[in-house]
Amino acid sequence: MTADRDLPPVSRTLSEFAADLTWADIPDDVRHNTKRSLLNFFGTAFAGAHDVALDHTVQVMAEFKGTGDATLIGRAETADPMTAAFINGAAGNVHDYDDTHIRTVIHPTAPVAPAILALSERQKVTGEEFLLALALGIEAACRIGNAVSPGHYARGWHITATCGVFGAALAVGKVLGLDAGRMNNALGAASAQSSGLVETLGFMAKSIGVGGAARGGLLAALLAERGLDGPARPLEGPRGFLQVTGDDPAYEEVSGQLGTRWEVLRNIHKPYPGGVVLFPMIDACMQFLEDGVFDVDAITKITIYGHPLLRQRADRPNVTTGREAQVSAQHAVSAVLRSGEAGLKQFTDEAVADPGNRAFRDKVFMEDRDGIDVAGVRMVIDAVDRTHEIVIDGARGTDARPLTDDEIETKFKTLASTYAPDCTRAGEMIEAVWSLDRADDVSALMKMARRD
Amino acid sequence: MTADRDLPPVSRTLSEFAADLTWADIPDDVRHNTKRSLLNFFGTAFAGAHDVALDHTVQVMAEFKGTGDATLIGRAETADPMTAAFINGAAGNVHDYDDTHIRTVIHPTAPVAPAILALSERQKVTGEEFLLALALGIEAACRIGNAVSPGHYARGWHITATCGVFGAALAVGKVLGLDAGRMNNALGAASAQSSGLVETLGFMAKSIGVGGAARGGLLAALLAERGLDGPARPLEGPRGFLQVTGDDPAYEEVSGQLGTRWEVLRNIHKPYPGGVVLFPMIDACMQFLEDGVFDVDAITKITIYGHPLLRQRADRPNVTTGREAQVSAQHAVSAVLRSGEAGLKQFTDEAVADPGNRAFRDKVFMEDRDGIDVAGVRMVIDAVDRTHEIVIDGARGTDARPLTDDEIETKFKTLASTYAPDCTRAGEMIEAVWSLDRADDVSALMKMARRD
Repeated sequence: MTADRDLPPVSRTLSEFAADLTWADIPDDVRHNTKRSLLNFFGTAFAGAHDVALDHTVQVMAEFKGTGDATLIGRAETADPMTAAFINGAAGNVHDYDDTHIRTVIHPTAPVAPAILALSERQKVTGEEFLLALALGIEAACRIGNAVSPGHYARGWHITATCGVFGAALAVGKVLGLDAGRMNNALGAASAQSSGLVETLGFMAKSIGVGGAARGGLLAALLAERGLDGPARPLEGPRGFLQVTGDDPAYEEVSGQLGTRWEVLRNIHKPYPGGVVLFPMIDACMQFLEDGVFDVDAITKITIYGHPLLRQRADRPNVTTGREAQVSAQHAVSAVLRSGEAGLKQFTDEAVADPGNRAFRDKVFMEDRDGIDVAGVRMVIDAVDRTHEIVIDGARGTDARPLTDDEIETKFKTLASTYAPDCTRAGEMIEAVWSLDRADDVSALMKMARRD
Repeated sequence: MTADRDLPPVSRTLSEFAADLTWADIPDDVRHNTKRSLLNFFGTAFAGAHDVALDHTVQVMAEFKGTGDATLIGRAETADPMTAAFINGAAGNVHDYDDTHIRTVIHPTAPVAPAILALSERQKVTGEEFLLALALGIEAACRIGNAVSPGHYARGWHITATCGVFGAALAVGKVLGLDAGRMNNALGAASAQSSGLVETLGFMAKSIGVGGAARGGLLAALLAERGLDGPARPLEGPRGFLQVTGDDPAYEEVSGQLGTRWEVLRNIHKPYPGGVVLFPMIDACMQFLEDGVFDVDAITKITIYGHPLLRQRADRPNVTTGREAQVSAQHAVSAVLRSGEAGLKQFTDEAVADPGNRAFRDKVFMEDRDGIDVAGVRMVIDAVDRTHEIVIDGARGTDARPLTDDEIETKFKTLASTYAPDCTRAGEMIEAVWSLDRADDVSALMKMARRD
């Protein structure tokens, strides 16, 4: 164990970086991928806005919220900024369809963006200020996550929430213009609120952790601005976040190559709901439908040859809930082939209970095959009198083939029009996000996300 | 490691106990000690009400709070019940002068009582309902803490906050009349919010964790009432609270002897601020002053003979802050002898910096002595021409000699009159707490805690 005095001062280093960072320091690709994650976030927040977990939460908070006019994305109600951060953070992540930092499995935008979006409805925030803060917040959350991965999540910490609160705190601190000392105090107040357990995944309780991270980050930075103090080493201290929740923290992951290595560039955007391991096989299903060689009804057997990890994670013929279906190859292939779509509706409890899907699942088998990358698959589809084979190299949405901007736009449009048809200005948001660095006032973007 | 299926279902057992518990099930001594902890809590909340950490927090929340009329103890402002729970929880514990469950070092009333006090200003709650819920909440927090002690705190979890949120959730759930299933969901929503790090102790950030536990418990139970679901095993599940934050959880500590073993009976009330290890030596100082054998100015040397633990924990001649002074024998003896008092003012940064106290500390020495209980001490006070010896067996405030009801009343009165002189009805609270089980409406008690 490292002696306390030898611990690298990563809290201070990160706080100084946060305080000093300017828009000019942000490379073009980082700026652009930050916008991509933001647009993707708005799409998933529209999709989650009226999830039952959100309805319950909005109803409970209606009694306690302040009188502010901050937007609840995709909803008609408004709230004080702290409550809005809570609700919008929960909405963005409720389906786990938001951006994903693969190495840590953090969904970084959901806890970070809502905190500064809410702030932008409290005080004027320019697009540059906002995107700078968002890039910083995503960076901080993912770096802190890297330092405790993979043990942290494996032990049971819901890393999106536990690390997200730090990212949110620094993002808000950046918009507030905090100096390095106050940034460090914001990390301290965030550390007192860092929470979230993997046991809650698949239940509505999960969203209380993620929404709480957005709210907690906003609270932490506002308290630090006011003068609330915290420990010198909230991250690396002997009883600080990294040592308490990580088994052998990699401190340099927090403080190394700051400003040159950007974790937001490792953020992927899902083309489909569910686990990344499903993506190559869903690609194959889509290809089969496009090829049109024979009908889905004619299929007698499907064999998925792939990397052992695919089978280990996704060979689940008997699933009973939409949650489980998100990592079931058998369900995914059945529901996608039979409906011709691969959206949230293919991964509901109803889709899992559908008799046609259930029967089809028995036709789907997985086999390991050497030499196929984890992002690829070879699918052999048999009918009585013929066979069709599809090879996918580098599935959509993985690092091998990130979604194009057009594909992210299409995902956003589909989610907005399906789940938020009453938000008639949602379509304007695409251009508003792409040009956000030239915007005078970010609150205009949030107004577009409201239900009329 | 226990196979998952063999894990004792302690979440369900505790939830069922919580749902079924009635006032008639609560023994008289438990009822009475619950009242003692409540009165003690009000005293410490008065003392903390205008601490700088609280002032910052109240000022930040002023912008975000709802329009409710819930009391902030010792202050003129009011707030929505959720914000009031947050602020009052922080106030009660900010000085660590509230009740202490020795085995876990949990201060259980600060996270639990504010949640149900706030609820009592939202809906009519009788004294019986309130005390039943408070006893339950304290019990749950301490039992969950027992199950992960001592490793949990040693690793760096601020156990008052991490376990307090569960107690608050069940207490609120009890007032709301939740059934066992919803109680379990309240535990689930609490588990997503359980946070607090020892690294923050001694800094204002600590209070965000403790206040957050009170608020989080209230939120969790209200969400569960509304229908928010959670995991079946939020406590004992493989990625649930006990396994994630404890190294080898003692499950039976949660569920064993429910209704016959009551942890609130192991709750002590501090006669003095600071660590329990200081209590016997402060008793000895008080005895010296009472004996009046010679003047404090005449003292040339003080030797404290005691259990090795006292020296290991409290032999700290060179301290620089009030926080450190709370576990410094040298400072405590100096400040108490020189001022003739042993209150919060003897443990401030100012008291530590006082030149007279600093000089006196050099006269105080500790030595181990076999055969002296940890709650006792033998103090030898030397002057140039004589010596005086004092033996303390079982210090005030320890299990050996719990504070009498009168002593708790005196502590309450001192704190209220010193720190909340504008709360002119505070004196009425003593009788109101002792007779609370006969009260129709607990909100009347909270109204007495307001600043005029």
